[in-house]
Amino acid sequence: MIKIDNGGVCFPKGFLAAGVKAGIKASGNLDLALLYSKEPARCFATFTKNQVQAAPVLYCKEVLSEKEAVSAVIVNSGNANACTGEQGNADAASMALIAEKELGICARSVLVGSTGVIGHKLPMDKIKAAIPGLVKDLNESNSELFARAICTTDTIIKTGCVSVQTSQGEIRFGGSCKGSGMIHPNMATMLAYITTDLKLPVDFSQEFKALVNESFNAITVDGDMSTNDTCILLANGQSGISLSDLSITDQSNVRAALFDLMKYLAVKIVEDGEGATKKVEIEVCGARNKSEAMQVAKSIATSNLVKCALFGCDPNWGRIVSSAGASGVAFAASNISLYFEGEQVVKNGMPTEISAGILKEIVKRKEYKISLDLGLGDSKVSVYTCDLSYDYVKINAEYTT
Amino acid sequence: MIKIDNGGVCFPKGFLAAGVKAGIKASGNLDLALLYSKEPARCFATFTKNQVQAAPVLYCKEVLSEKEAVSAVIVNSGNANACTGEQGNADAASMALIAEKELGICARSVLVGSTGVIGHKLPMDKIKAAIPGLVKDLNESNSELFARAICTTDTIIKTGCVSVQTSQGEIRFGGSCKGSGMIHPNMATMLAYITTDLKLPVDFSQEFKALVNESFNAITVDGDMSTNDTCILLANGQSGISLSDLSITDQSNVRAALFDLMKYLAVKIVEDGEGATKKVEIEVCGARNKSEAMQVAKSIATSNLVKCALFGCDPNWGRIVSSAGASGVAFAASNISLYFEGEQVVKNGMPTEISAGILKEIVKRKEYKISLDLGLGDSKVSVYTCDLSYDYVKINAEYTT
Repeated sequence: MIKIDNGGVCFPKGFLAAGVKAGIKASGNLDLALLYSKEPARCFATFTKNQVQAAPVLYCKEVLSEKEAVSAVIVNSGNANACTGEQGNADAASMALIAEKELGICARSVLVGSTGVIGHKLPMDKIKAAIPGLVKDLNESNSELFARAICTTDTIIKTGCVSVQTSQGEIRFGGSCKGSGMIHPNMATMLAYITTDLKLPVDFSQEFKALVNESFNAITVDGDMSTNDTCILLANGQSGISLSDLSITDQSNVRAALFDLMKYLAVKIVEDGEGATKKVEIEVCGARNKSEAMQVAKSIATSNLVKCALFGCDPNWGRIVSSAGASGVAFAASNISLYFEGEQVVKNGMPTEISAGILKEIVKRKEYKISLDLGLGDSKVSVYTCDLSYDYVKINAEYTT
Repeated sequence: MIKIDNGGVCFPKGFLAAGVKAGIKASGNLDLALLYSKEPARCFATFTKNQVQAAPVLYCKEVLSEKEAVSAVIVNSGNANACTGEQGNADAASMALIAEKELGICARSVLVGSTGVIGHKLPMDKIKAAIPGLVKDLNESNSELFARAICTTDTIIKTGCVSVQTSQGEIRFGGSCKGSGMIHPNMATMLAYITTDLKLPVDFSQEFKALVNESFNAITVDGDMSTNDTCILLANGQSGISLSDLSITDQSNVRAALFDLMKYLAVKIVEDGEGATKKVEIEVCGARNKSEAMQVAKSIATSNLVKCALFGCDPNWGRIVSSAGASGVAFAASNISLYFEGEQVVKNGMPTEISAGILKEIVKRKEYKISLDLGLGDSKVSVYTCDLSYDYVKINAEYTT
């Protein structure tokens, strides 16, 4: 049993963080964050697949095409530095360079992240002025300040940590993410930073992508994908332990701990979905393969009609079955089964005679599980979604460019 | 200039219609409709691509795989006859058979349509009892009753007609459709019936599909696709004129008239979108081909963030550009231009200095056009969408299975 605690990015050995008010946000809240590893950390990263990529995303991809380890990540909130042209690219590079100079480390060893409104130039004077203080504040007890400074419309900070005892000693993972609206597959408007003192091999990148697919890419708030989404794992090896040196059992425990932490953080984003009142797990099982299971699960999880029904506490299985059918994955309607918290609602494609009272009690809960069995094979995945509420519309109708 | 009038399915020669109260709807409103052609009419049809297809859809596809001409369509509202298993299939066939007997025409010459709640058996006793009266009421002045009887949550009936003067005489088109929520590409919860007295060749079916793609499949209310969607064109040749006998100019006028009518009816569905307060045309131009243009346009038109911004009268170009980028179509962000009613908002991927006042005035309108130029080629398409309002959530949270 893996126990996840409240700690954040500084929980693993050798990581320091800071968060300050640079004056980017009109609200005057924390808006500039720094994560620093005492030793260069091997970096694994996934970015938005949006064709319109913000300057910090382009900058990180460029740096990571040249080197596999970095020392720090600087992140601002309140401004996405997206759709800002050449000036935006220069500003992202400049943010990194100023931080590198202030930290006294070599060039191209700091990554950059930005989140906030699109189409506005970064206030570089403010950022430049704040970086010295930011670096001075670096401390291993600043996980929460870091988590707070990367937030935008988030109503809660999202941090987590987990440790694993192996035969060679303790390994730690920490993390922090932000995101509430626009969250979907492919990590829309989501920034996630995971740290570990484990030493990871270069070829862990494939595995990292798979873990992201079943955690940060398996949540959906409204189906949109932003220009800035980033998920980064920094592994600085400060535990002195290498993944490849561990026993099979220890390796398996370590992988499970990392996945659980990533999923824990991802689900926190769903809980903080704009205006959300429900958190619902959509499991699709009996699929031919994971990819098809994911396609069906996301079709259900992003359906506005399904999400309105969740909000209205309506056990509207017809909409669930219909959105599964619209996913593009082939299946026989006469083969499917549907369950709400284990109670069978559809059998062989037709409604069962389950009592309305039992169903009504389930859909009134704040948190429950819907499971669709396609009857085709053995693969299954889960996607976490929230409901579509009046407040979602209110927040998004009133948020200005 | 093509002028579309209020007439409906009975406007072309040789079509009769009826609509009665069979008692399927709890409200007691009209719920059983019949469209009849005095001579068998060549039938062109497109159906939902949902994997879960309602019994009437399966029945129509079966009939049309055997024959190209039919005499009538019987449609009930209030019950979708979907997820109803073998009994549902038998009921759809039985509805057709009873109508054929009552009309005194040969077997398998009546098509069936159903729309309403999913997972409930059709009340066949009520339908059977109502069919004699329905047939008796057949009349060429009943276009409106037909239009009314196929409605569910629609707040307005949707009919239209157009005539074209050719060198060989007049050709008429009429039509009626229903749909408000769940409308999207692939015609979710949409039924559309178009009639004409023109004689059309069998190979018009490809052209018909293309017309459907740019009309009924180019609208979106909430991105869902239902189990029952159907679009049918009946051509009975009663004008005595064949499309292939017309001059090139006349052919072109006739095609334009049919397309305009289909688009007119489709846009009426958007206007009646559940809770919609805006009707917005999303044009994507400068695309490599129509298919990519459509993919980008639909990505924008179905984005909840974009739709909330429309509702909030927020000229949020960032969300439009971002949802275009999330469409999966490759383009260079630095090449795109965006216009609201011809006013340029984005140039080379960056915001212009257009005054906020001008923009604010445009987005307050009930109806306007957003145009995105991808700068890649010459293809363009338009998709019509509506906003996402409080009332959309309310209607869909409260509608019970």
